[in-house]
Amino acid sequence: MTFAHRHLLGIEQLKPQDITQILDLAESYVDLNRQAAKHADVLAGLTQINMFFEASTRTQASFELAGKRLGADVMNMAMQASSIKKGETLIDTALTLNAMHPDLLVVRHPHSGAVDLLAQKVNCAVLNAGDGRHEHPTQALLDALTIRRAKGRLHRLNVAICGDIAHSRVARSNILLLGKMESRIRLIGPPTLVPAQFADMGCEVYDDMREGLAGVDVVMMLRLQKERMDGGFIPSEREYYHRYGLDAEKLALAKPDAIVMHPGPMNRGVEIDGTLADDINRSVIQDQVEMGVAVRMAAMELLAGNLAGSRVPA
Amino acid sequence: MTFAHRHLLGIEQLKPQDITQILDLAESYVDLNRQAAKHADVLAGLTQINMFFEASTRTQASFELAGKRLGADVMNMAMQASSIKKGETLIDTALTLNAMHPDLLVVRHPHSGAVDLLAQKVNCAVLNAGDGRHEHPTQALLDALTIRRAKGRLHRLNVAICGDIAHSRVARSNILLLGKMESRIRLIGPPTLVPAQFADMGCEVYDDMREGLAGVDVVMMLRLQKERMDGGFIPSEREYYHRYGLDAEKLALAKPDAIVMHPGPMNRGVEIDGTLADDINRSVIQDQVEMGVAVRMAAMELLAGNLAGSRVPA
Amino acid sequence: MTFAHRHLLGIEQLKPQDITQILDLAESYVDLNRQAAKHADVLAGLTQINMFFEASTRTQASFELAGKRLGADVMNMAMQASSIKKGETLIDTALTLNAMHPDLLVVRHPHSGAVDLLAQKVNCAVLNAGDGRHEHPTQALLDALTIRRAKGRLHRLNVAICGDIAHSRVARSNILLLGKMESRIRLIGPPTLVPAQFADMGCEVYDDMREGLAGVDVVMMLRLQKERMDGGFIPSEREYYHRYGLDAEKLALAKPDAIVMHPGPMNRGVEIDGTLADDINRSVIQDQVEMGVAVRMAAMELLAGNLAGSRVPA
Repeated sequence: MTFAHRHLLGIEQLKPQDITQILDLAESYVDLNRQAAKHADVLAGLTQINMFFEASTRTQASFELAGKRLGADVMNMAMQASSIKKGETLIDTALTLNAMHPDLLVVRHPHSGAVDLLAQKVNCAVLNAGDGRHEHPTQALLDALTIRRAKGRLHRLNVAICGDIAHSRVARSNILLLGKMESRIRLIGPPTLVPAQFADMGCEVYDDMREGLAGVDVVMMLRLQKERMDGGFIPSEREYYHRYGLDAEKLALAKPDAIVMHPGPMNRGVEIDGTLADDINRSVIQDQVEMGVAVRMAAMELLAGNLAGSRVPA
Repeated sequence: MTFAHRHLLGIEQLKPQDITQILDLAESYVDLNRQAAKHADVLAGLTQINMFFEASTRTQASFELAGKRLGADVMNMAMQASSIKKGETLIDTALTLNAMHPDLLVVRHPHSGAVDLLAQKVNCAVLNAGDGRHEHPTQALLDALTIRRAKGRLHRLNVAICGDIAHSRVARSNILLLGKMESRIRLIGPPTLVPAQFADMGCEVYDDMREGLAGVDVVMMLRLQKERMDGGFIPSEREYYHRYGLDAEKLALAKPDAIVMHPGPMNRGVEIDGTLADDINRSVIQDQVEMGVAVRMAAMELLAGNLAGSRVPA
Repeated sequence: MTFAHRHLLGIEQLKPQDITQILDLAESYVDLNRQAAKHADVLAGLTQINMFFEASTRTQASFELAGKRLGADVMNMAMQASSIKKGETLIDTALTLNAMHPDLLVVRHPHSGAVDLLAQKVNCAVLNAGDGRHEHPTQALLDALTIRRAKGRLHRLNVAICGDIAHSRVARSNILLLGKMESRIRLIGPPTLVPAQFADMGCEVYDDMREGLAGVDVVMMLRLQKERMDGGFIPSEREYYHRYGLDAEKLALAKPDAIVMHPGPMNRGVEIDGTLADDINRSVIQDQVEMGVAVRMAAMELLAGNLAGSRVPA
């Protein structure tokens, strides 16, 4: 069971069968993680380095636990406090770490394309943990696993992605993935936060939540990323919640069994009503986090499998 | 050998036999830690997450080493740099980590009661590593182990706790523990730093060191926590040392074999004379640190034992 | 195979046979690190603590990976954010960690001599990871291994060390090591950055790159450490590069097979031309990083071997 890619840089490069392969393997790790002793040794003796050029609680923690549970030696680099400050370039930093023979390099970077560039320079497997507004492939994969477990399939679903789409690599990776799996996507948000390019990618665009949510199977909320809105339009939270925040009343327009998702961290009372976020009959927000560890275990196992093949001569 | 509690939130909830159970198990880890290869595998495959919302060198290091020596996968979360900054609440952060299936969650938080609140929301074992001015149970347990090894018992001792009691969760947990173990406690400090409530808990209160130290078995000094004295009385260090700092002359009033303790970090020449702190005939300050790792290993083993019982169906 | 030293504090204390012993053992770890599963268990059950009082990407990462690949429990202490801020002294911090029974203590400190002082206070093995302008022994050892692999020997070589020698512990440790191994050293740099003391140590001093590089086997560039030049002479980068930066034209004066080294992080276009730094026919800069992990694995194994001998009674 080989995986067709050397790196996991984005959903864009994956075929539907690649996605299914990752999700199928992840299912076994969902089970493992629920046990008391949650350890497999498929990465024993391998080195995983997490290079986060942007701070992240959940994504870094998720990759760290994934690697440790698979037996890898995991090292976190706090890149803000690093040699970058001493005048070193991104590529030099990457080459330096590469010379220490990591097997898996997990990279988050504020600039779109930085992770792809870096992957060209190293001879280990690179996993994109989010680059600028470009891609966040493991987030889309964990969302896909969450949806597949709740709905039984990934095709022929109606999925609404709502809110600050313009600043969201999460939205972009999800749009790519759900399109490949033959689901239909609606984008709902204020026109200033929904880029025109996505309409060209086959998404339906709405600026009215009630209209957009009608009959959908999945409601995917996004975090309002005020920290990325430099200079431009910043909506008032109250006005934003009134028009685009998800509450029980707006959700009633979706299918009766529609699920509610959010990649976190949540702004309760801004994008989503707190009670609804905690309603385990509708919200799968905690499941998303749980699936995250499993999906990352699967992705790292598959990439490491390729690595061993390419390094150890027959 | 089961432990009667799901969490270790404070000394308040423990019975004398719970305390003895932890200390007895810790003794075996004192021996293990003195060996060259210091490893047991009782937490193998389990996940320990350290969430420190306040910086701490010694406590976090002690918990980290305790977990690693027991074979756990240990992950440190730098909570100051976390999603909290992106607007997430304490509870959402806890629920997120909980969804990653940790087994042991070690939490330090600046607000009293925050750790108890968090423990109600997660389904793993929670250890309080210090919350506001409330409790710091593993500190009281390591102090108890240190005293028991030096004095051969925990009952019928006269213990003086000296200095900045008002800001000290260490003092509070120690008062609770020593009371349960039937020792007598004297609190010595300037009236502004000794809260009246403790007199009601059966402690004798002194504002004169010479009077208070007369005939005691144990002298427990506290750190002057200037960083917590917002707006209120801040004594000059010189004056404070003169009246409340421990030196050989004041110590001479205690029993000839009285031991000297300090939870660290020490302000030499403020709370305690540096030469006295280093005198291995009187000071057990280094022993306290050593006992800390052993007590935390014991507490985590006991809590993990319960966890396995509750999760793995027979 | 015992090692003659309890600590690795500097090159100054080592005999040529000690250096050869470390390099020979390191060779086996170069091989191990190139394999897919790169693990040995010679430090299993031992505790390694990294205390970095100055930030460092590559050195801390190198020590961390070295320890993890040898099976140690590795703990990083972010000393800037530590108890030091609460008024604790360096020695108290060291004594505190020592009481937790580490086996290997890796220390970087901004003050020359701080690591030696600390080593006197603890009963574990101490490795100096750089102290002030004093020593950085593992850097000199990794440089030596890189040279030995490229040139087949460490004696009767002509080695040029170029640039900001005044602020460089790397230069100082390399001068000591290469002198002990009977190579000849030329120091090249502006007179303000080449301390007179080194001429007394048998080095030839040049302030003209073209003159100094004539016929050398090894060209070792140093980083211009502007952050350490408090108040004194700060050259303009352009002028500095023109006179002391290494480019193909200046390198042409060295032997045709001369190798180019740099301890990193590099200032491209200041100390060294970027194209030359990347030229794998001349530059061994990536090899240096690779050798770093291997040398640190060897040094820690040798020191740990002694430790076991001294602790476990026969």
